[in-house]
Amino acid sequence: MERIRSTELAQHVGEQVRLRGWLHHSRVLSHVSFLILRDGWGTSQIVPADPVVLSDLAAESVIEVDGRAVAEPRAPGGVEVREASIRVLSPAQAGLPLELFRPSIDAALPRILDHAALALRHPRRRAAFRLMEASVAAYRAVLREHDFTEVFTPKIVATATESGANTFQLDYFGRPAYLAQSPQLYKQTLVGVFERVFEVGPVFRAEPHDTPRHLNEYVSLDAEMGFVTDHRDVMAMLEVTIRAMARAATAHPSAATARARLPIQLPERFPVLHFAEALELLASDFGDGVRTEPDLAPAHERWLGEWALRVHGSDFLFILGYPMQKRPFYTHPDPDRPEYSRGFDLLFRGLETVTGGQRLHRSEDYEAVMRERHVDPTPFASYLEAFRYGMPPHGGFAIGLERWVQQLVGASNLRETTLFPRDLSRLVP
Amino acid sequence: MERIRSTELAQHVGEQVRLRGWLHHSRVLSHVSFLILRDGWGTSQIVPADPVVLSDLAAESVIEVDGRAVAEPRAPGGVEVREASIRVLSPAQAGLPLELFRPSIDAALPRILDHAALALRHPRRRAAFRLMEASVAAYRAVLREHDFTEVFTPKIVATATESGANTFQLDYFGRPAYLAQSPQLYKQTLVGVFERVFEVGPVFRAEPHDTPRHLNEYVSLDAEMGFVTDHRDVMAMLEVTIRAMARAATAHPSAATARARLPIQLPERFPVLHFAEALELLASDFGDGVRTEPDLAPAHERWLGEWALRVHGSDFLFILGYPMQKRPFYTHPDPDRPEYSRGFDLLFRGLETVTGGQRLHRSEDYEAVMRERHVDPTPFASYLEAFRYGMPPHGGFAIGLERWVQQLVGASNLRETTLFPRDLSRLVP
Repeated sequence: MERIRSTELAQHVGEQVRLRGWLHHSRVLSHVSFLILRDGWGTSQIVPADPVVLSDLAAESVIEVDGRAVAEPRAPGGVEVREASIRVLSPAQAGLPLELFRPSIDAALPRILDHAALALRHPRRRAAFRLMEASVAAYRAVLREHDFTEVFTPKIVATATESGANTFQLDYFGRPAYLAQSPQLYKQTLVGVFERVFEVGPVFRAEPHDTPRHLNEYVSLDAEMGFVTDHRDVMAMLEVTIRAMARAATAHPSAATARARLPIQLPERFPVLHFAEALELLASDFGDGVRTEPDLAPAHERWLGEWALRVHGSDFLFILGYPMQKRPFYTHPDPDRPEYSRGFDLLFRGLETVTGGQRLHRSEDYEAVMRERHVDPTPFASYLEAFRYGMPPHGGFAIGLERWVQQLVGASNLRETTLFPRDLSRLVP
Repeated sequence: MERIRSTELAQHVGEQVRLRGWLHHSRVLSHVSFLILRDGWGTSQIVPADPVVLSDLAAESVIEVDGRAVAEPRAPGGVEVREASIRVLSPAQAGLPLELFRPSIDAALPRILDHAALALRHPRRRAAFRLMEASVAAYRAVLREHDFTEVFTPKIVATATESGANTFQLDYFGRPAYLAQSPQLYKQTLVGVFERVFEVGPVFRAEPHDTPRHLNEYVSLDAEMGFVTDHRDVMAMLEVTIRAMARAATAHPSAATARARLPIQLPERFPVLHFAEALELLASDFGDGVRTEPDLAPAHERWLGEWALRVHGSDFLFILGYPMQKRPFYTHPDPDRPEYSRGFDLLFRGLETVTGGQRLHRSEDYEAVMRERHVDPTPFASYLEAFRYGMPPHGGFAIGLERWVQQLVGASNLRETTLFPRDLSRLVP
């Protein structure tokens, strides 16, 4: 007999069915005994023909169940499997370190992360990663529709991408090498080849930050596009991309299980606030001192996120024109106000989730900015070669995937939306 | 006016059009002058209204062309743009280090790789990476159709994945850490969560091999599936996947430009040869000594590839049952011949392109094999926890993406089908 999924059970009422999965939970009562089987997609209630089988079967044992699907209004999903024979495919040991059958895992985050191999089996935790994959699939689909080519660039690099700070160093056959902080330089170079590129891959930041919003390795959804007029083309493409990701996550069958914060508030157009305007707004609550800040603090972003929701009915807010001094050397200045850049962030529910902007594209602009910033051009020789031989005006963005999911499900810590997070103290599992 | 792509030009005959791209080539002759514009997708022939513009325009300059599309049988594609005005968007310097307009780049591979930022612009080289992306898209699509979930696992790990040898070590906030040689242990763990998973990501091998078939960083297309009967379910899934990838590459508009070796010979079923049978066959040409080999050498694989094509009309050949002694600890033995494994390779045109197999799934089997192989279980604690608490029979495979494309286009060196290859001596660009 072919195995069906728990989520297909309702289509088989009255039939003999076979399910396979894990023993999620069992209850042996005087009048009735039942078990909950969990497979990769959901759970089903099972009433065994001989309840004695449950007495020494540990939670998380892998089982195969044959029985009859019967409508039962009191069962979750309105169907249960009765007169079931249970075959143990792979027994679990007793003493599961976390209880997985309750609506949430009742343990502190470090313990949950220590036992990730088990904790991720919890339906609610698992569902968040199904939203993650759906978001990534939507990201790729929309960019491919818009003629972006997916690329794979190296993660071992000879020089720090943007600055010497905050990079992991490794031993490359006796020479020093580094882990790429972003595919930035490669994706720009590849605009010269494919015009429009994207990459989904790990990035590595040796930042010694121990906060709920930082990880030392995360997945970056990068894109870069050529022949733009200016940053506005990039922002428009990002907006299209984010809408597609939001649609995919909203429509996903796992959204309810993950307790995604729906609906996502998407106005006609994402509001855009210039960095200087943002400081003006913030001054009302944070005081005049904020007007001279070169960047936004997390509390400022949260405030602006609330403002965007209140004033524009939007979960998203573009902050445009960050001061040049805080942006990397390839950032394109605003020609009208050269102390400000054509760089932007996109806040999602008050958290910086995307960074992007227009980049410099003329060889002489790179030479000038490197002189000005005292950046040695030698390690960038190959990158600069692309600009010497014709690069169109271009720009791009990078979405932090785990942050996207964090905001989607309202997790208080980025580690909850990372399968196996890496931070200052965590290298295992 | 909206810009059209070079590949759309034939649909606009008789119309005024705008193209943007790079000056691929120009010829100033006494009777006629023309240029070839290359954009992200193809090339178009342009006859400028005023040929003087070409006299000091360097190759690879970024230009915008406005003119009239005219049917012209002598032009490539049967259409050219006449009376064209040329606007320079971003001039290139003179002295391009590689000539990009010939059918192939006339330079040695090291020089081509040194100037990757430019060499990749060559239509033939670029096209190989379009086949790469199409292959990956097909890989993901077919696995998603079969209910696999895409996952993202960490590349910085606390212990070498499978053995201490051949791993890159890095400094993780003062502690040693390693780059993951594969997502093997994570993808197995995640079978316990999602049942079926896949990952597309970089893997890192510190192997000091300087060969045309090895790289120190490459893209691995990994998959792992639970509730298998044995290795045959895994091989069947792989075969479905490979067929989808082959279809996608064959149908791709870039296949001709990349000079893909088509058709790909796909018989009704991929032939399967047991490792011991393979050695028997090889003995006829390589002598009796080959019968005691524990693994296949590259020359053996090539021989077997030719055999599969000759005897089975197949570009693919499964070699099943590699000796246990050469396979990693998680490999499932063949219960009938325990010196052989349920591990397989898939040869594509005589090159090992995929490795896979059924894995052990019972906790006690892992304990036994680790004792036997003198593997310290301590660093694998989290992995082993998954097996203590219920893991179904499972298996999976890993496709080497660059090797796939190498065999697809018949490149003699893996470096030709890697955007920015990493090897013993190459960390740049």
